[in-house]
Amino acid sequence: MSYHTGAAVTARHTLASPLLAALDIGGTKIAGGLVDTEGTLLHQVQLPTPALGSSRDLMGTVDSILDLLAQHPRWASVRAVGIGSAGPVDTEVGSVSPVNIPAWRGFPLRSEVAAHPAVKDLPVVLGGDAVAMTAAEHWRGAARPYRNVLCLVVSTGVGAGLVIDGRLHTGPSGNAGHLGHISIDFAGRPCPCGSRGCLEGIASGTAIARNAAERGWRPVEGDVSATAVASAARAGDPLALHAFDRAARALAAGIAATATLVEIEAAVIGGGVAQAGDVLFAPLRTHFATYATLPFTAGTVLVPARLGTDAGLVGAAALARPALALLSGPTAH
Amino acid sequence: MSYHTGAAVTARHTLASPLLAALDIGGTKIAGGLVDTEGTLLHQVQLPTPALGSSRDLMGTVDSILDLLAQHPRWASVRAVGIGSAGPVDTEVGSVSPVNIPAWRGFPLRSEVAAHPAVKDLPVVLGGDAVAMTAAEHWRGAARPYRNVLCLVVSTGVGAGLVIDGRLHTGPSGNAGHLGHISIDFAGRPCPCGSRGCLEGIASGTAIARNAAERGWRPVEGDVSATAVASAARAGDPLALHAFDRAARALAAGIAATATLVEIEAAVIGGGVAQAGDVLFAPLRTHFATYATLPFTAGTVLVPARLGTDAGLVGAAALARPALALLSGPTAH
Repeated sequence: MSYHTGAAVTARHTLASPLLAALDIGGTKIAGGLVDTEGTLLHQVQLPTPALGSSRDLMGTVDSILDLLAQHPRWASVRAVGIGSAGPVDTEVGSVSPVNIPAWRGFPLRSEVAAHPAVKDLPVVLGGDAVAMTAAEHWRGAARPYRNVLCLVVSTGVGAGLVIDGRLHTGPSGNAGHLGHISIDFAGRPCPCGSRGCLEGIASGTAIARNAAERGWRPVEGDVSATAVASAARAGDPLALHAFDRAARALAAGIAATATLVEIEAAVIGGGVAQAGDVLFAPLRTHFATYATLPFTAGTVLVPARLGTDAGLVGAAALARPALALLSGPTAH
Repeated sequence: MSYHTGAAVTARHTLASPLLAALDIGGTKIAGGLVDTEGTLLHQVQLPTPALGSSRDLMGTVDSILDLLAQHPRWASVRAVGIGSAGPVDTEVGSVSPVNIPAWRGFPLRSEVAAHPAVKDLPVVLGGDAVAMTAAEHWRGAARPYRNVLCLVVSTGVGAGLVIDGRLHTGPSGNAGHLGHISIDFAGRPCPCGSRGCLEGIASGTAIARNAAERGWRPVEGDVSATAVASAARAGDPLALHAFDRAARALAAGIAATATLVEIEAAVIGGGVAQAGDVLFAPLRTHFATYATLPFTAGTVLVPARLGTDAGLVGAAALARPALALLSGPTAH
């Protein structure tokens, strides 16, 4: 029970216990990590995504990340690999078609990762990046107290994932929770996806910056990003406040639609735009009360995400946890 | 193996096999039925709902329906009672607050039904009417082939229910699938529920009739209902066609939102408005293709409901089926 004994136990646990390897595939960076079974990110590496490169260039970068991870002294403890990828994904066939990575259309990422020499024989689990973030927040973050919850990533785009009855709801193809592409303005502006009035086209960081610029907002120092709009809104700029209010209203309608359709106790909101804090959350809560009016939706709570930039890798690892449970079941040694 | 033997076996089965009692509580009528374990409606009775009467008047009508059912020679075979009620409902506490029955607000319908002398000791299961219809279509109707499916009732209002991963998804309070009150026009017309731009306010039969009238459509024989608008649309009336087109577009956006959020293979559409046939389904399919553009939503099929007016009672019985399974488990005699 002494401090020394406790530390020794901890060290022994750390060395012996299984690990999960995680890959987070985005349009800007490709990251890899090692995550323990408590959901702690122990080690991470990343490289820029050659987003406009060939399919082979892209897979070369993924292989380099796996090479780097495999050099870690604890790689031998890795029991499963989880991949969270920009979507759409197709988890039935194990392929990805990320909107911002044009060379990958139906690319068989799961089998390509499984073919890496250091991965051979490990189970590999693929999911969408927003579903991975949802798994992370439900495992270790702000979604942990809830059995039914929507987790959103509001940044360049709007992604989301669902937990239903205490379990991650991925849908048959792994894309459930695609909140950014529900229409909340059915006669509205065409969306690049082909639909109209999609939530993402009104509430994403890109949309906030565009909305502010269209109404005449001009930054003091040339930064036209949603982060700059958020700073201006905090300083009281009415055009910047309007852009956030409109995004918050759209998010409120989308979250209320989810609460109405599937019944959720909470929505967890992360991503760069959520870092604007009260500039987003204050109007979001006000508008949510006007859209979530039914008795079973009115109590839904809106809370900020907790895991920040680790959510991608922790979430990818979370996707692989069921594979770990299967391995450690009664039939395994 | 002769015809005679077969008939005898059938008759013996019919007499000995357990039954489900069903109650369907609506703003216009209160119906009761006896349903066998194959989902066949064997017997039904109904009375007009004293919708503006007192709580006691209303429960008196429910008691009369139960009295009538209990006079049936096979009542002794009833093993569980299912109730499908106009919503909202609260299945956690067993209460109902039907919008069109003002005297019932948080009315403890489940325990009141359980207290009827003929019901005593039988399990009583409560659900919303659209959830019950969904259970019916998934048990015996058009939703049967699908593991993930949305079932809609488009009539005076718009109700719906969800099957996810092969099981009815009711949500903790029994109201999941409330598609009529998602906002598809977030800056649109105020809805009586307090929100704005709700699907029901654009796509219900009431909305179709209002939309046609607002644009100047006048019926030949004074019937201003959605059924009359459907007849006019079939005859080529442009205002009537426009009203159905707008409703179809709104329904398409709402079904696509559901496909995007939870992944569904099919949407089953029933209710009076769906009986308009191609006048609704043709524009619905056209518009759906423009809203369901993502690879995992584009394949969703739209099919008419199959059970018609029986769906309410068969569905109420379907809600009680799990109770029956529990009773016939290994611990029961």
